[in-house]
Amino acid sequence: MADINAIAKEFTDFYYTTFDSNRANLGPLYRETSMLTWEGTPIQSANAIVEKLTSLPFAKVQHKVTTLDAQPSNPAVASLIVSVTGLLVVDDSPNPLQFSQVFQLIPDGGSYYVYNDVFRLNYGE
Amino acid sequence: MADINAIAKEFTDFYYTTFDSNRANLGPLYRETSMLTWEGTPIQSANAIVEKLTSLPFAKVQHKVTTLDAQPSNPAVASLIVSVTGLLVVDDSPNPLQFSQVFQLIPDGGSYYVYNDVFRLNYGE
Repeated sequence: MADINAIAKEFTDFYYTTFDSNRANLGPLYRETSMLTWEGTPIQSANAIVEKLTSLPFAKVQHKVTTLDAQPSNPAVASLIVSVTGLLVVDDSPNPLQFSQVFQLIPDGGSYYVYNDVFRLNYGE
Repeated sequence: MADINAIAKEFTDFYYTTFDSNRANLGPLYRETSMLTWEGTPIQSANAIVEKLTSLPFAKVQHKVTTLDAQPSNPAVASLIVSVTGLLVVDDSPNPLQFSQVFQLIPDGGSYYVYNDVFRLNYGE
């Protein structure tokens, strides 16, 4: 599964670099049918997702990926599930937050779009 | 998405209760094509997955689900992605471990089987 892991790495590098520099630019990764569940709140469509992401109350954010796993998600299509855990540094806080994020990527004309996106902070006990 | 959340809740209740009582009984939830990535190690097929799960080096284990999110994973099929975060209490340790787990469930004759399964412990910094 070397290829799928390379796709997952390339996607997450691009996704988090874009998120951390200008998250309004994430729009083209989503479609009308795309879903985001952000901390339990379900949101659908590229426009609504970008509106949510750009309204998050932090000015400066940095994602640090700790683990990255990928699996093919459909025997008939080259789609994949990407599961990420990592740390989120918000507004230069000395206490990074742990997060988990899951994507399903669907192939579309030589590239991929995000069909599923689930984001959660992990607060521990 | 009330229905999908109910399915996800029912599935995870059953899955973790079974895991914590006798994880050999998880076999029927998987098929030959099922994939598990356990702490970065890829495993395929029901038999290999059960062999892995039953060989894990803990006698007593308890999963406590903290967050549970579900989304439909395919516009044409009633499959779903289930994303879980929670705590794992191993052998009565006073220090639970955080975990993240993602499943894709595929409908099959009135029930579901696990096509994708990604498990990770979250160690923090």
